[in-house]
Amino acid sequence: MSVKLLLGPGFPEEEIGLLRKHAEVLLLSEMGDGDLDAVLPKIGCLLVHFWPERLDAARVSEMTRLLLVQTGLAGVNHIPFGALRKTVMVCSNAGGFSDEVGEHAWGLLRSAGKRVVKFDAAMRKEGFKPAPALELGRDILVLKGRTLGIVGYGSIGRKVAELGKAFGMDVMAFSRSKVEEPGIVSLRGRSGLEKMLRESDAAVIALPLTKSTRGLIGEEELSMMKREAILVNIARAEIVDEGAIYRHLVANRKFIYATDVWWMKEGKETYAPELPFLKLENFIGTPHVSGPSAAVTSAPQRIAVKNVLRFLGGGEPLNVVNRSEYT
Amino acid sequence: MSVKLLLGPGFPEEEIGLLRKHAEVLLLSEMGDGDLDAVLPKIGCLLVHFWPERLDAARVSEMTRLLLVQTGLAGVNHIPFGALRKTVMVCSNAGGFSDEVGEHAWGLLRSAGKRVVKFDAAMRKEGFKPAPALELGRDILVLKGRTLGIVGYGSIGRKVAELGKAFGMDVMAFSRSKVEEPGIVSLRGRSGLEKMLRESDAAVIALPLTKSTRGLIGEEELSMMKREAILVNIARAEIVDEGAIYRHLVANRKFIYATDVWWMKEGKETYAPELPFLKLENFIGTPHVSGPSAAVTSAPQRIAVKNVLRFLGGGEPLNVVNRSEYT
Repeated sequence: MSVKLLLGPGFPEEEIGLLRKHAEVLLLSEMGDGDLDAVLPKIGCLLVHFWPERLDAARVSEMTRLLLVQTGLAGVNHIPFGALRKTVMVCSNAGGFSDEVGEHAWGLLRSAGKRVVKFDAAMRKEGFKPAPALELGRDILVLKGRTLGIVGYGSIGRKVAELGKAFGMDVMAFSRSKVEEPGIVSLRGRSGLEKMLRESDAAVIALPLTKSTRGLIGEEELSMMKREAILVNIARAEIVDEGAIYRHLVANRKFIYATDVWWMKEGKETYAPELPFLKLENFIGTPHVSGPSAAVTSAPQRIAVKNVLRFLGGGEPLNVVNRSEYT
Repeated sequence: MSVKLLLGPGFPEEEIGLLRKHAEVLLLSEMGDGDLDAVLPKIGCLLVHFWPERLDAARVSEMTRLLLVQTGLAGVNHIPFGALRKTVMVCSNAGGFSDEVGEHAWGLLRSAGKRVVKFDAAMRKEGFKPAPALELGRDILVLKGRTLGIVGYGSIGRKVAELGKAFGMDVMAFSRSKVEEPGIVSLRGRSGLEKMLRESDAAVIALPLTKSTRGLIGEEELSMMKREAILVNIARAEIVDEGAIYRHLVANRKFIYATDVWWMKEGKETYAPELPFLKLENFIGTPHVSGPSAAVTSAPQRIAVKNVLRFLGGGEPLNVVNRSEYT
């Protein structure tokens, strides 16, 4: 008797074919509520990008044989851990997005550092008069020889670091476990974080959103940073305190916050934040495009499916998250 | 009797001090017209960033003992070769700006490829509604595995290539002499240029402006490029035909031209071009800030002064240009 696997939308045919060789694949989008309710107690494995709204707490409580939840997204902060039995393994898709999200971090960092967004907007206004050349030059961040801090050193953080080294930057990595790589300064604990904040000319947030990373960068942490630093967020908005970063940007006009991720309002990421970030010249935003740019390549889906196949073949799945960090 | 060196503005005190050890340094900004006229026949060496307006053809013709012109700028297209005696050596400051200009090329390329400028501007408009995630993702250029063409392989081109390799791109270099470097496809001649144009997902122009590079990228060349390619110019605007690129951008809305350099009007680079580039969404512009960002570090000035010192010490100066390419 093969395992019943409930599959959410967004996975390519080819990958579904691979799954069908080792499991009975049920496509959530093709199931009516009645069929879904009937099959819930038999589902052994769930593979989804976003958590499906139809799988509410009542339905999840019926999934008594569920053993594995694999998410197609890199983060698992959308998983309703509270509703899931403790025996269910939840796997993130860490690594699935690192190339593309790492590239996007650099897209934001370069757009900010080279003032491309600001200059392009200024030039489009009528009557633009540039400042003298040297003054314009002073606005630009030359990366070579400057310090790049990476907050979180998973696969995305490592990709960002690799590119930082290519640009001739001094790279510091803040992480839980010690980083032993040539050319990377490993920083840990509160004092490590503070050292990184104080010394970075640019910092990239590449941490998962957990209980302990929520609000990690608040007023105190921002106040430690250089007044002309650039802070990039390609992880989750909630790692940065919304009010604190807004006040910091208003008070420090040369500090730049460049983000691809947005604070959740009523359970949804919203691109129209309550505070008027989008009126600030020292704010740069993209509408969470880093993940989708990877999904277009199908690479993250392939990696998620591979992990499920590993489990279906009797192996230990990778990237099982520690649920105590989320609940 | 020491050499008389006429010095333009923009050189740091420390460097002037070094020059004074080997030459009698005359500061152009501190000389009245009478003093300048009196000393012209005795000047052996001229070191300037921009060509000084005061040194018109009549004055240049009086500089009968002039042996060396060193420019602080990377390019020498501003030098009045026609007025200079054939015995005068003219040295470019090739290499002086490569780190910063190479970085800026990447700033433009990332801002364009990751659609940061476009998305940021869109989000600032009221009522912004993002397209579905995968559609947004399709707009993004993932660099890894794509092809980067570099038009001109001097010190700036090499810097751009190095960063391209770090991003996992396939790099092609178009140049006069064969490039024998691991991981670089060397292309030469007309057929080489055409191959590069056809195959590049992103291309960076890093050539000097000479008689033979003026208008190198015109209608025919643009028509060979991929419809969704990105063309970056950090060299000189005139290498690209103004009318041709404008028409190409209007006809190909997914093609992006990102430039730091602007066409000259009446002898001056102007940031308000005649054609309405700044109304186009697939155009990105910065007001020639790459060079100034380097000048702030004083690195280019140091490198130019070092070359002059080489000459003053009896050595052969580097980067002597072939004036037949400019006249």
